[in-house]
Amino acid sequence: MIAQLISIGNELTGGQTVDTNSPWLAQQLASLGVRCVRHVSIADELEPIRDAIVEASRAADVVLITGGLGPTPDDLTREALATAMGVPLRLHTPSLIHIEEYFKRRGRTMHPANRQQAMIPEGANAIENPHGTAPGISARLSRAAVFCMPGVPYEMKEMWQRGVRPELETGAGRLVQERILRTFGMSESEVGERIGDLMRRDRNPTVGTSAAELIISIRIVAEADHAEACQGMIDADATEIRKRLGDVVYGEADETLATAVGRLLIERRQTISTAESCTGGLIAKRLTDVSGSSGYMLQGFVTYSNEAKSRLLGVPSELIATQGAVSRETAEAMAEQCRRASGTDYAIAVTGIAGPTGGTPEKPVGLVFVALASAGKTIVKELRLGDNLRREQVRDRTAKAALNLLRLSLIRTC
Amino acid sequence: MIAQLISIGNELTGGQTVDTNSPWLAQQLASLGVRCVRHVSIADELEPIRDAIVEASRAADVVLITGGLGPTPDDLTREALATAMGVPLRLHTPSLIHIEEYFKRRGRTMHPANRQQAMIPEGANAIENPHGTAPGISARLSRAAVFCMPGVPYEMKEMWQRGVRPELETGAGRLVQERILRTFGMSESEVGERIGDLMRRDRNPTVGTSAAELIISIRIVAEADHAEACQGMIDADATEIRKRLGDVVYGEADETLATAVGRLLIERRQTISTAESCTGGLIAKRLTDVSGSSGYMLQGFVTYSNEAKSRLLGVPSELIATQGAVSRETAEAMAEQCRRASGTDYAIAVTGIAGPTGGTPEKPVGLVFVALASAGKTIVKELRLGDNLRREQVRDRTAKAALNLLRLSLIRTC
Repeated sequence: MIAQLISIGNELTGGQTVDTNSPWLAQQLASLGVRCVRHVSIADELEPIRDAIVEASRAADVVLITGGLGPTPDDLTREALATAMGVPLRLHTPSLIHIEEYFKRRGRTMHPANRQQAMIPEGANAIENPHGTAPGISARLSRAAVFCMPGVPYEMKEMWQRGVRPELETGAGRLVQERILRTFGMSESEVGERIGDLMRRDRNPTVGTSAAELIISIRIVAEADHAEACQGMIDADATEIRKRLGDVVYGEADETLATAVGRLLIERRQTISTAESCTGGLIAKRLTDVSGSSGYMLQGFVTYSNEAKSRLLGVPSELIATQGAVSRETAEAMAEQCRRASGTDYAIAVTGIAGPTGGTPEKPVGLVFVALASAGKTIVKELRLGDNLRREQVRDRTAKAALNLLRLSLIRTC
Repeated sequence: MIAQLISIGNELTGGQTVDTNSPWLAQQLASLGVRCVRHVSIADELEPIRDAIVEASRAADVVLITGGLGPTPDDLTREALATAMGVPLRLHTPSLIHIEEYFKRRGRTMHPANRQQAMIPEGANAIENPHGTAPGISARLSRAAVFCMPGVPYEMKEMWQRGVRPELETGAGRLVQERILRTFGMSESEVGERIGDLMRRDRNPTVGTSAAELIISIRIVAEADHAEACQGMIDADATEIRKRLGDVVYGEADETLATAVGRLLIERRQTISTAESCTGGLIAKRLTDVSGSSGYMLQGFVTYSNEAKSRLLGVPSELIATQGAVSRETAEAMAEQCRRASGTDYAIAVTGIAGPTGGTPEKPVGLVFVALASAGKTIVKELRLGDNLRREQVRDRTAKAALNLLRLSLIRTC
């Protein structure tokens, strides 16, 4: 089964409100094996709403509509649905009683305008709204089961759980389940190249990639009659993908490079400290985003000024003077001194030019040195991130590169 | 003029990603006097994308399309637009050169798959993408000017500003301009009470509030025939609002508490250092988000373990033992020792329980002590943020409270 979502309101089309109902409903539908292929947001105007309902009802098995059920003149969903169905609106007495009681319970008198909220297209059914005045509406139109719900998220969610989801569970089709693999260190096109055959559109599971700030995510979506079958298909693809991509796959679902690193440090009972210049605390922040990180993240230095690099870490000021604060040698010294001062198994140090100012021809914005000190050896990696990046991107990518450097040496020294 | 937006990607229709591009673009269009009446999000499938483009181009003067310009087989926007226009795709050599140089600058070799990103429908124009590989596309179809932009928000926004907005400014209708004031330290309802009369729907400018993680934003939107008139109306309201709210207004537009603090520190030629426990580097990170922060942010300590508090800052371990690491006394000592060790005018220190674990009846999750040391005095503020917050919220609110404490003492000691 496939679904389309329609969300109604000028605040959505005007951009003042971000439509979070549609993503939430799409995920709810997916968990029922109903695939959502289209969301439409429309302004508060009768004809466009009617047309969208007609169009969606021809193309989908399920149409979920949110918003436009209020008492004001610009709430047009009821009327638009009735017009789309070619039927009049009729007063639904139980709903009217519910609305009157809703106000009575709150010691308020019902405004006449609220009466229109009890109007339902002839032949449609009302859906109870425990949290508000407007009932929802369920109806059949063309090939689709159509459900209208309020736009207020908590009213909508409650109505979905109680009044809509149960209707769909019975009629729902095959189960759809997904898993997401997270990778770092390979371009989206290279990932696509390595697993291109798995990304054929006609396969089940389907495999797709998406990129966000150097994290390439691989989504595996399997469709089957029951959960075990879905999981079996997903496991097979996940195993194959991990085999082809190796350790660029750092985790699944919501895992970050920091949680992956944390898991490895706990497994190995090892500890980490940080010395940061251009990232100014971002790496320590990422490490300590993880609950329980106090078990391995012992301390960090933000040595933003050259003076601090010498005073806090004991990096020789002559070294900084001769090689520069942004140099392989300074990064190396920062990491080694940080590890010594902290008594940790590993120490990460970064120094670079985050920009937008401070770049020179030989040391441009985006030049960063990342150092990782461990027992007996220190690795230094030079990054040239490009001078077209924003400051926050340079810092974000530097933090990711540093955490990934640690992750890889944790994996490889196990 | 009216506009329609099309956003493309399974991650959108599947609900894994919330489409924030469309609301942002709708507001940008509004500022040009172009009214957006419809957003459509579509899965990565050729025919539905093509149909949506055809339909939107018949109904609107402007069609903005985001997403589907990547290098992988499921990036179909180029092909869908070409099909909708009834023309073939042609290689756009300057774009290919841009892509090749993009990889060269990063010392990487271009993957063959990226070549397809340089394909443009015959008769359409490429729009430069300074931040990525995929060029945008501008074309005419039916009554509409059609623009394709990347789905990656920062690439899209940069392309909009440089390559799309200028195209539309010429043709735009009545002018709508806005200004946003940012406040911290007052509830949305209290702000609403103080400026309620300015928030009447029938006014021009309109004034509205929105809340996000304790930052209350006040949006002033004025409509007039020319920019000067808009600005004059906005200035008047902004001045009145600042008069009524006083120093809870910390800035405008994209200003953060960290940029506000930075401005004040530079004006006063003063310096800051940080000692962080529960925020684990977040405050230093926020301070150094600001370009030029090296002028006032000298150094920071992440003393995540008790040992580090004593070793790095010289907080007496007896004090920690008797009062606890999360205590007024420890926060105070951390701040004073940090200021001494750093030789800065101010030092911020925080210690608290970020959760989700680690809370006790007398010291629950969300209990945080924020200390600010300056010449001759140290202020300590106790926060009880509530144990219903997520870890990241506790850390975020702690950082904001700390930066605001510094901001207010900078203002008040001037």
